[in-house]
Amino acid sequence: MAILGELGTEILIPVCGVVGIVFAIAQWFIVSKVKVTPGAAAAGGSKNGYGDYLIEEEEGLNDHNVVVKCAEIQTAISEGATSFLFTMYQYVGMFMVVFAAVIFVFLGSIEGFSTKGQPCTYSTGTCKPALYTALFSTASFLLGAITSLVSGFLGMKIATYANARTTLEARKGVGKAFITAFRSGAVMGFLLSSSGLVVLYITINVFKMYYGDDWEGLFESITGYGLGGSSMALFGRVGGGIYTKAADVGADLVGKVERNIPEDDPRNPAVIADNVGDNVGDIAGMGSDLFGSYAESSCAALVVASISSFGINHDFTAMCYPLLVSSVGIIVCLLTTLFATDFFEIKAASEIEPALKKQLIISTALMTIGVAVISWLALPAKFTIFNFGAQKDVSNWGLFFCVAVGLWAGLIIGFVTEYYTSNAYSPVQDVADSCRTGAATNVIFGLALGYKSVIIPIFAIAVSIYVSFSIAAMYGIAMAALGMLSTMATGLAIDAYGPISDNAGGIAEMAGMSHRIRERTDALDAAGNTTAAIGKGFAIGSAALVSLALFGAFVSRAGVKVVDVLSPKVFIGLIVGAMLPYWFSAMTMKSVGSAALKMVEEVRRQFNTIPGLMEGTAKPDYATCVKISTDASIKEMIPPGALVMLTPLIVGTLFGVETLSGVLAGALVSGVQIAISASNTGGAWDNAKKYIEAGNSEHARSLGPKGSDCHKAAVIGDTIGDPLKDTSGPSLNILIKLMAVESLVFAPFFATYGGVLFRYI
Amino acid sequence: MAILGELGTEILIPVCGVVGIVFAIAQWFIVSKVKVTPGAAAAGGSKNGYGDYLIEEEEGLNDHNVVVKCAEIQTAISEGATSFLFTMYQYVGMFMVVFAAVIFVFLGSIEGFSTKGQPCTYSTGTCKPALYTALFSTASFLLGAITSLVSGFLGMKIATYANARTTLEARKGVGKAFITAFRSGAVMGFLLSSSGLVVLYITINVFKMYYGDDWEGLFESITGYGLGGSSMALFGRVGGGIYTKAADVGADLVGKVERNIPEDDPRNPAVIADNVGDNVGDIAGMGSDLFGSYAESSCAALVVASISSFGINHDFTAMCYPLLVSSVGIIVCLLTTLFATDFFEIKAASEIEPALKKQLIISTALMTIGVAVISWLALPAKFTIFNFGAQKDVSNWGLFFCVAVGLWAGLIIGFVTEYYTSNAYSPVQDVADSCRTGAATNVIFGLALGYKSVIIPIFAIAVSIYVSFSIAAMYGIAMAALGMLSTMATGLAIDAYGPISDNAGGIAEMAGMSHRIRERTDALDAAGNTTAAIGKGFAIGSAALVSLALFGAFVSRAGVKVVDVLSPKVFIGLIVGAMLPYWFSAMTMKSVGSAALKMVEEVRRQFNTIPGLMEGTAKPDYATCVKISTDASIKEMIPPGALVMLTPLIVGTLFGVETLSGVLAGALVSGVQIAISASNTGGAWDNAKKYIEAGNSEHARSLGPKGSDCHKAAVIGDTIGDPLKDTSGPSLNILIKLMAVESLVFAPFFATYGGVLFRYI
Repeated sequence: MAILGELGTEILIPVCGVVGIVFAIAQWFIVSKVKVTPGAAAAGGSKNGYGDYLIEEEEGLNDHNVVVKCAEIQTAISEGATSFLFTMYQYVGMFMVVFAAVIFVFLGSIEGFSTKGQPCTYSTGTCKPALYTALFSTASFLLGAITSLVSGFLGMKIATYANARTTLEARKGVGKAFITAFRSGAVMGFLLSSSGLVVLYITINVFKMYYGDDWEGLFESITGYGLGGSSMALFGRVGGGIYTKAADVGADLVGKVERNIPEDDPRNPAVIADNVGDNVGDIAGMGSDLFGSYAESSCAALVVASISSFGINHDFTAMCYPLLVSSVGIIVCLLTTLFATDFFEIKAASEIEPALKKQLIISTALMTIGVAVISWLALPAKFTIFNFGAQKDVSNWGLFFCVAVGLWAGLIIGFVTEYYTSNAYSPVQDVADSCRTGAATNVIFGLALGYKSVIIPIFAIAVSIYVSFSIAAMYGIAMAALGMLSTMATGLAIDAYGPISDNAGGIAEMAGMSHRIRERTDALDAAGNTTAAIGKGFAIGSAALVSLALFGAFVSRAGVKVVDVLSPKVFIGLIVGAMLPYWFSAMTMKSVGSAALKMVEEVRRQFNTIPGLMEGTAKPDYATCVKISTDASIKEMIPPGALVMLTPLIVGTLFGVETLSGVLAGALVSGVQIAISASNTGGAWDNAKKYIEAGNSEHARSLGPKGSDCHKAAVIGDTIGDPLKDTSGPSLNILIKLMAVESLVFAPFFATYGGVLFRYI
Repeated sequence: MAILGELGTEILIPVCGVVGIVFAIAQWFIVSKVKVTPGAAAAGGSKNGYGDYLIEEEEGLNDHNVVVKCAEIQTAISEGATSFLFTMYQYVGMFMVVFAAVIFVFLGSIEGFSTKGQPCTYSTGTCKPALYTALFSTASFLLGAITSLVSGFLGMKIATYANARTTLEARKGVGKAFITAFRSGAVMGFLLSSSGLVVLYITINVFKMYYGDDWEGLFESITGYGLGGSSMALFGRVGGGIYTKAADVGADLVGKVERNIPEDDPRNPAVIADNVGDNVGDIAGMGSDLFGSYAESSCAALVVASISSFGINHDFTAMCYPLLVSSVGIIVCLLTTLFATDFFEIKAASEIEPALKKQLIISTALMTIGVAVISWLALPAKFTIFNFGAQKDVSNWGLFFCVAVGLWAGLIIGFVTEYYTSNAYSPVQDVADSCRTGAATNVIFGLALGYKSVIIPIFAIAVSIYVSFSIAAMYGIAMAALGMLSTMATGLAIDAYGPISDNAGGIAEMAGMSHRIRERTDALDAAGNTTAAIGKGFAIGSAALVSLALFGAFVSRAGVKVVDVLSPKVFIGLIVGAMLPYWFSAMTMKSVGSAALKMVEEVRRQFNTIPGLMEGTAKPDYATCVKISTDASIKEMIPPGALVMLTPLIVGTLFGVETLSGVLAGALVSGVQIAISASNTGGAWDNAKKYIEAGNSEHARSLGPKGSDCHKAAVIGDTIGDPLKDTSGPSLNILIKLMAVESLVFAPFFATYGGVLFRYI
């Protein structure tokens, strides 16, 4: 048996979770000390941390007015985001209720709604009736959805709380601004990963009171948690993605291209919608997405473990190994965060990217030690894992290796993403250079860059899969996915840092702060583009592993022994599955395009009909633009959402589990490529533009300045990249994960009733 | 036994082949009556077919000078194309010799270069030694490569022979010009499909003299023919694709965007290279590609049939069923061609697209009858097919159904492609409309259109696969592929028509013909863009089926019983295979980009240093641009070529047949999507631009005219689409086919020695 006893586990997991939450609150408290009310700001010390004056004072600007303006803008952004999320939650809430009913009816019907216990599939003894498992699955589905919703909402709230504070701190120096943005990101990261852990842990313990020794049923019903989290994430990502990019593209097309006014200029009516978008898309959407990945990989690991020797021997500590890894992850990330906030200090813009990169390296290195320790403590030296009908012997060190391989694969993906999207390296500089011959070559080079950036991540994922599967079959893959996600708190912190900085820059521009402050926020933002791409890289890498693990769990539960490509049922699934990401991307990109066109019309209308708008003497009507984005995204998120949610149900019911297996595998291997290339292409274009704007090298200056032909070509690339990197690309993560987890939840139904069409032909 | 006896087969196949060749020569003879020497043109009657004067005479232009200029330009294009192809053939020739040696050594080594016969794998009795099969495989490889080379070269010769003649006929009316271009396309279509058939037929008969009753060895060695054809096609497509688009993009970027001179303006130094490119890329490359598909699907069908009851019972007529289907196809296409050239007459530009569409419908309808007849005549009523270790009973009507399903799936793909790429329908018009808000929305809408256009073709392919596999396993799929390719002569004719018209337009512009002639050639060209996209749709659809059939044949030969996605060996193959098309596209797109940048520099240099060039008083240096394209494409085709050729060898040797199966399946399901979306996106952008330029509707005029902001945005889209639709997209066909056929040829080697890495880990 393992060294760590059951009691130790029962204490360790909730304690780590609570520590994470307390740490998040502490970070929030520190951020809250930056006051956005003018009087208090003065009281808080108007000198910056390095003994210099505030830039405003130096340049003779009226500090009071600037702070008031910041507060106003922050309120507008926060209100817009809140109102959008509430509208979205109403629609999604209705959907969740309907879908919960579907889950209950489908799963309940398996044994004809019987309330009698049935013999267990894997272990001996009697298991709980399918009807109650249907009920508990439905409950955990709703719980997952609500946790995801709350996580996304709180993330958005924190981000809109932090954006103006980051702007104000930028007056004191780039280091202060960085710390504020980073701390706020950490609030979200820790809150999300800790609450995900705690809720899951409580749910398991509550469900266990009913299920008792029937762990098969217990962990089967827990998978609903992953499905709930991911369903919510789907709408968050797609709806938020359409919102943010409709506003962004619309604002850029009229503002930058037609009217020749800078980004985030307060005269642009779509500028508030654009800033709201960053919070609902990149913050709330991203948070839900990673929460979904975390919930799903935990569920996949648990459901596979429940039919291994852990489950059959009722070894609670070993069973909770996935949760223990996440618990250790929270502590490791907490230490890592201190390196950025307390142990080192950022003094120049050029130190930002290395500091964020160091976060990745430190957390990965520490986590490797943490995983080794917990594997030694929590796992028996030898145990057996279920592997599609066969048993497989695994050692605790083997399992440590699975987690570690996922962890380090994540780091490699992060570094490759950084290389291809940061303007410090040649790929982005080449793309910027290709702007010399216009937008067309910029686009050709950008697309080629995205395609090329797929190579190493795919090899990293392939190696992780091979190693972890060889060691511990599908359980190994689930643990590799959790390994990649174990440093999620840090990953989310540096990821959320991006949109906060972006917003901070927007607020600085709108509040009329000096160009020197704008330079500082721009530097924060450029690093943020890269970290956003890294975050997406993590999200897609872990999504690939998670969906494979879910796929494996689905296949086990559905009783499929072999998924043979040579069988036509599987092959047609494979080719159609590989097509789904294209269909889905077509929908989301077209949605962004159409919504952006509507936004363009409105912005043009305002410029044409509101006298004095262009001169800055009249205020634009921000609210109408916010409303256009809200309405468009709510309306447009339904068809792609339906595609993802209905495909597994239709394929499983009509064509059966074999074809569905093909669809899942096809969507996975095809979707992961498009997702990586789309997000890197978009990130590269954005930073190529920033590279030209910043003009920090001889080469960059030869392409600039702002407004030159090169820069115009770069802006076109950036605009094209927007829906790729923030809407269609990241939504594909959810497509592949959600279809897999949905198939897993409905596996018993499909195994019993599926394949209607083939049965009658 | 079948109704058609062995003698009947021995007569029917060569007769059909010879009829096709004679018909091609006859068409060529008719085209040759259009004289490009001024005197003879006058003698041939300067009035056009409808009793009107030539446009030149009406407008008082000097007819003599125009004709002389046309002849000059034609010579320049022809010389450029010939010189490029000869340079390419030198390099490719060296490669072919090396690769032939590799084939011989690898396959010869299987039985340790023993010259003793071995017991057969499937039938009873002794089969020929592997060493001799290696020798014959090498011979058929070289034969396939040479046939492909000759086909591509002759196609190019005919196209460069026809382009100026089409221009001259355009003076007499759009109908005359259409017929000339179409006839010339038919020359290529019939020459290629007939010679492919005849050479394959002769090879089988010659090889049979050695192999006698060992049909297993006979048809195994014949697969080299497919590999040879496809290897040649790889370099033709990639090299030609880079050539044509480097020139096209380079010419457009400086000419249209910077200098504001029209397309094909003789002052543009890259204009001859651009026209040469159409012939080496779209004609020679396309010809090699489709020849490769034809050779491969025939080989796949033959090798599968050789281990079915046909082969074991030595039923020669049934064995030759794939060749008989192609023979009937030639006769059917011959009849179909008469509908375009003799039975109906084109009188207005708007009749062109319907006429070409009618060709597709007529050939498909007639072919369905033809296949039914030949299936009844050539096949026994019942026979058995080998299906991965099991036997499967098939009826002759079942097999007819397999061919028919492929044939009709091809038609569906053609129609869908037309819908998404023709400017007569809303998708392209929407893309054109999105140019209102600039290049960025144009690109977003264009990409979304391409993604969306994948949906129906994939369903069509999936249904074909399911139906034909259910009926006759992998043999059914091979026959479905041949069914899709059975109307290849017509398909190639309408496909080759496109670049010929494109060239004709270029020549009209360069020779300074009136805008009314240019309008006629533009109308021909716009229809040509759609037919080119349809041709690519056919090419990729058939490639998908062909590679699946080859994949099945490979798996059979390698002795793999199951390709289980749940095995990590297979899954990592699948995900890496799905990545290869991205890697390959990144290479080819970047190649086009870099080569285009070189071209831009040279064109700019000429405009800046040659006095009087812009004013039209001095002649540009066309030859340097031709040389830049040639050198760049030769140099740049090597890395992507190596990727495709080496992957199966490396994976098969190091990781074994299971992982290789995964790679093939992954590349197939992922590549087919990118290929379809890339070629349709490119086609749509090109026609969106043409839609704005032509201004044939209220809506189109509101976007135009040439030079407006909308038009400029459309030109950017067109330029981005160039490498997508003519380089990276179509090359992917070859990637998926070639890797499959190469694996098939080397299957015995991999089965014996493969998987070195896994064996030692």
